[in-house]
Amino acid sequence: MSLLVVGTVAFDAIETPFGKRDKTVGGSASFLGTASSFFTKPHLVSVIGEDFPEEALKRFQARGIDTQGIERQRGGKTFFWAGRYDQNLNVAHTLETQLNVLATFEPKVPSAYRKLPYVMLGNFDPQLQRRVVEQLDSPKLVAADTMNYWITDHNAELRKTLKHVHMLSVNEGEARMLSGEWNLRKAAIAIADMGPKIVVVKRGEYGATLFTEEGIFVAPAYMLETALDPTGAGDSFAGGLLGHVARIDSAKPRVLRQAIVMGSSLGSFAVEGFGLERYETLTPGEIRKRFEQLHALTNFETAGIPW
Amino acid sequence: MSLLVVGTVAFDAIETPFGKRDKTVGGSASFLGTASSFFTKPHLVSVIGEDFPEEALKRFQARGIDTQGIERQRGGKTFFWAGRYDQNLNVAHTLETQLNVLATFEPKVPSAYRKLPYVMLGNFDPQLQRRVVEQLDSPKLVAADTMNYWITDHNAELRKTLKHVHMLSVNEGEARMLSGEWNLRKAAIAIADMGPKIVVVKRGEYGATLFTEEGIFVAPAYMLETALDPTGAGDSFAGGLLGHVARIDSAKPRVLRQAIVMGSSLGSFAVEGFGLERYETLTPGEIRKRFEQLHALTNFETAGIPW
Repeated sequence: MSLLVVGTVAFDAIETPFGKRDKTVGGSASFLGTASSFFTKPHLVSVIGEDFPEEALKRFQARGIDTQGIERQRGGKTFFWAGRYDQNLNVAHTLETQLNVLATFEPKVPSAYRKLPYVMLGNFDPQLQRRVVEQLDSPKLVAADTMNYWITDHNAELRKTLKHVHMLSVNEGEARMLSGEWNLRKAAIAIADMGPKIVVVKRGEYGATLFTEEGIFVAPAYMLETALDPTGAGDSFAGGLLGHVARIDSAKPRVLRQAIVMGSSLGSFAVEGFGLERYETLTPGEIRKRFEQLHALTNFETAGIPW
Repeated sequence: MSLLVVGTVAFDAIETPFGKRDKTVGGSASFLGTASSFFTKPHLVSVIGEDFPEEALKRFQARGIDTQGIERQRGGKTFFWAGRYDQNLNVAHTLETQLNVLATFEPKVPSAYRKLPYVMLGNFDPQLQRRVVEQLDSPKLVAADTMNYWITDHNAELRKTLKHVHMLSVNEGEARMLSGEWNLRKAAIAIADMGPKIVVVKRGEYGATLFTEEGIFVAPAYMLETALDPTGAGDSFAGGLLGHVARIDSAKPRVLRQAIVMGSSLGSFAVEGFGLERYETLTPGEIRKRFEQLHALTNFETAGIPW
């Protein structure tokens, strides 16, 4: 089944202890779309400026990504983000943000996209996220990301939007901030009460934890030898997750567990290169191998214990 | 098979956001011995002062712990530690340390203990750790803990000791400090070069990671609803780990993986009460159940994916 992705397409300037890029294609929709394209056909809704190269769109299309929902604003400039990471790569320090065409963006879902069964809303204004959902025709699963700014400064809007969201993907700090609970089990229960019955807590180099009514699932992060740039890791994770759900056409607990691990696999690859660079050579065989390595990483026998 | 445990027996004063205790029995050997007593017969080598209650020793003995190797110093006072934890319970703030009888402690391994096959050295002076190993008669596995103070201020001594250690159990910060490597995979390789071919990295609420020549294993932490006091969690973890290894009489990769999870189970129980309190009611059935819950927490199917 196909996937609707709504989010940003951006230019990023990135600096890590391992290198820098002055202008590379980024943004949540770019990572979500690229990661999920290994599993399903992603349909992107986003906005770019006149400065965004046609050739970059062609690269998306070559992956089977439908870019017809990407609106190009005449005379506008593409959203720009500049950030720096320290050695531990866990925290992004934003150096500059130019909203540009994003400032007036009103996501319009093309009529051909309105019946898409799986939906991923990248991190943007919760009011706009809700307007996207309102344009849809009974999707099977709506997943969304958000961040501290919306939690603190637009909490009421976010709360309204969460009522329409089935799966929320946030990091530990955001889960705690949104719920007011330090304990992650309690935080997940509080968030489920706001709407999303599926809560995915991203824990960076420690992996991710899935909370559903079925129970808790802890997915490991792949232990990288080479971590260059964490930009887009969270969106690559969500892209792998939703891509797997769309491919299997199920959000049953068994499938969700696999999907989280698939997300962990994709997230780990994203970190191995700057921006989208690692995807240029990534193969389905490598994804499969890493998925199996993640299984080997956590697998243990319960038999043979003389209880 | 039996286990030799060398470490401290102490009085602890503990303050967490969830309560406080002015004087409770603690110390690495107390937690290591108590946790491992569910699986094997631990033989303790330690030192106490005249003030240590006979009744506390009796409680150890009632668990099948051999306390004959605990030396009581006439006129001496038992080692005392006072600490405080903030809400996240990850960092201990030491308020007071009175070494007392520990200041002149020279661990003497009773002749009856010298052939014990499995050995756990709690965190103490690496020079003394080495003297313990020198008193032993070809043990199958020597495991040791250490801490930042020994890594920075007694590095040469620690390095000498590590040559005789098969398994080192440290937290993430200590692994990085000891190896000079930020990346944990590289850190584990560097530590293995110093001696211990089995490296266990404790990651608190994120679980633990095992590095051996066979590969990497990531064990989850149990997601507690009630965490009261982390004192002794690391030693309870190591006690469960070594206890399982001694019970199965094997340190093969398959057994080590189970052992890490057993350690995670025991560590999680320790946190549910102050000091050793949770152990007063803990049953083998509860340990088994949590072991199986830890399996359910990480288990996922690799079948059914249309690669």
